[in-house]
Amino acid sequence: MLEHGGNLNDAVIRYGIARADWLDLSTGINPAAYPAPVLKADAWHRLPESDATLVDAACAYYGASHMLPVAGTQAAIQALPQLRRRDHGAARVVVAAPAYAEHAHRWTQAGHAVREVAYDDLPAALESCDVMVVCNPNNPTGARVAPDILLAWAEALAARGGWLVVDEAFGDTTPQLSVASYSHTGDGGRPGLIVLRSVGKFFGLAGVRLGFVAAGGTLLPALQEWLGPWSVSGPAQQIGVAALKDVAWQEATRVTLLAQGKRLQDLLATCGIPASGSAMYQWWPEPDAVGFHDWMAQQGIWVRLFTRGAVGIRLGLPADEAAWVRLQNALQGWCEQRSYAERVA
Amino acid sequence: MLEHGGNLNDAVIRYGIARADWLDLSTGINPAAYPAPVLKADAWHRLPESDATLVDAACAYYGASHMLPVAGTQAAIQALPQLRRRDHGAARVVVAAPAYAEHAHRWTQAGHAVREVAYDDLPAALESCDVMVVCNPNNPTGARVAPDILLAWAEALAARGGWLVVDEAFGDTTPQLSVASYSHTGDGGRPGLIVLRSVGKFFGLAGVRLGFVAAGGTLLPALQEWLGPWSVSGPAQQIGVAALKDVAWQEATRVTLLAQGKRLQDLLATCGIPASGSAMYQWWPEPDAVGFHDWMAQQGIWVRLFTRGAVGIRLGLPADEAAWVRLQNALQGWCEQRSYAERVA
Repeated sequence: MLEHGGNLNDAVIRYGIARADWLDLSTGINPAAYPAPVLKADAWHRLPESDATLVDAACAYYGASHMLPVAGTQAAIQALPQLRRRDHGAARVVVAAPAYAEHAHRWTQAGHAVREVAYDDLPAALESCDVMVVCNPNNPTGARVAPDILLAWAEALAARGGWLVVDEAFGDTTPQLSVASYSHTGDGGRPGLIVLRSVGKFFGLAGVRLGFVAAGGTLLPALQEWLGPWSVSGPAQQIGVAALKDVAWQEATRVTLLAQGKRLQDLLATCGIPASGSAMYQWWPEPDAVGFHDWMAQQGIWVRLFTRGAVGIRLGLPADEAAWVRLQNALQGWCEQRSYAERVA
Repeated sequence: MLEHGGNLNDAVIRYGIARADWLDLSTGINPAAYPAPVLKADAWHRLPESDATLVDAACAYYGASHMLPVAGTQAAIQALPQLRRRDHGAARVVVAAPAYAEHAHRWTQAGHAVREVAYDDLPAALESCDVMVVCNPNNPTGARVAPDILLAWAEALAARGGWLVVDEAFGDTTPQLSVASYSHTGDGGRPGLIVLRSVGKFFGLAGVRLGFVAAGGTLLPALQEWLGPWSVSGPAQQIGVAALKDVAWQEATRVTLLAQGKRLQDLLATCGIPASGSAMYQWWPEPDAVGFHDWMAQQGIWVRLFTRGAVGIRLGLPADEAAWVRLQNALQGWCEQRSYAERVA
């Protein structure tokens, strides 16, 4: 099992600091979660039935015409390599890197020939692959690919039966980058363009386990059959409908998160740390990533350490002013101790 | 996608009866659900972390030494054929039949050679298979296999690297049948014995999506890796811990459900219907199953019609006295209309 952020139990065990005393910045999840509505009385009791309301709300919010709810995008990330293998055999897969590590891991596990390719080198790699996977914007580096480029790649891949998988899990604050609306194979759509969206990050509802896949052709029915009945819980459906339809909350949250992401980037800059990322996280290739991670942990701040791929540090957003101050103090302590600004100058 | 019970949306569309007016007896789920505890404030917000408390509670309740939580036994039913295929190639699989149809469906889909074999013919089929799947007690027929027989089969299969998969999803009211405690490969355990348990049925928490797999050797780590991170939601974990530790509720519920199952069987007998099943459902090979299903639906009672496999009707337990009366009246109407008792005499 790959390591991921949000593993606060590990932090508690390793540093002997009580769970309640941690400031957890190890994920890129909105700390101000959408307030879950009161559930229907039978939400826990009944088998979940598929709900057109949920799909309609998702299509409206994400701008796609055909979507399938899944129990978190992770479920789709695991299923797509299996489906591809079953229906088309082993593929040559290019995964944009460094990125969310589960993509390369799952394509490799399913028996495909996987190459991890830097974002800048993707155009040159297009010709020699059947499937390309791009996180846009990327987690954790924040790398971006313009939609028109993605659509051209999707067309080139589709022409030879290939797929372009675009993981827009962190795309809610950059809607101008989304290609979800081109994922259907109807008028103007691109066959073989598969877009992944996540409810967990922007809505701060990672515990709900809800995401969506936008795609055309027979892919969504095949994916639904693969994932089986009742894969998305009833409570997840109810909460998802409320969150996806609350346009006022979405608009206000987008503004807030963009401002907070800027604030985090600026705070890091004052410590001489040039970071990149998206609204909900900032990342940099910290030369002493292990030391930084340990320094912060000793002060009860749990950050995400990457020791492979995007080697470095990722910070999520503090939840409130006290948390911002705590982070700022810890960062200043780090700078002073290591004379960080001078060292990188 | 196979059809399953609990599909009340289909009933609403097909019969034009409002959802609230239906008496849904189409599943075998305890109608008196365990009361879900109040969730922690961050249950919907945080990524779910794996929780030793949950596994400990499950091991204590089910009597197994090693268990893995899954998002409903359906998740394991889908994953096991894939894991078997990946690690051992295509197998000769015997699925006890008629039974819960997803077993045969998923083993077939994964490319194994599947034979559906009647419960009585399982002993003769043992020699010619690598994997055997038995629901015990069976859904919907109520067929049972004694634990010592299952353990002998597990040993015979294990001797040649085979698996015995025992689906005890409806086993909570017949703990004397369970082989979960033999599933570990340590002292006295049986390698290759895999036991599935469900929280949804007995605890009436089908919306939670929680089940467990008991097994030894490397199977549980392999299954965990296959199912990926965060497959069981945080709320499911919290509710599961509470339900699995509440021994007083479990004991009272076992008594109640056994009595209600007997009551349902007796009620059907008064209509001349000889039914079998387990505490939470009764089934019979109704000769006019389509007619019976339609008759009940016209009165707003949604029952489970099987048109293949266990061709016939399954009824779940009414939730309260009013529901019992409603069912009784509908059954009597059916008997009178069809002179059922005379016809089958």
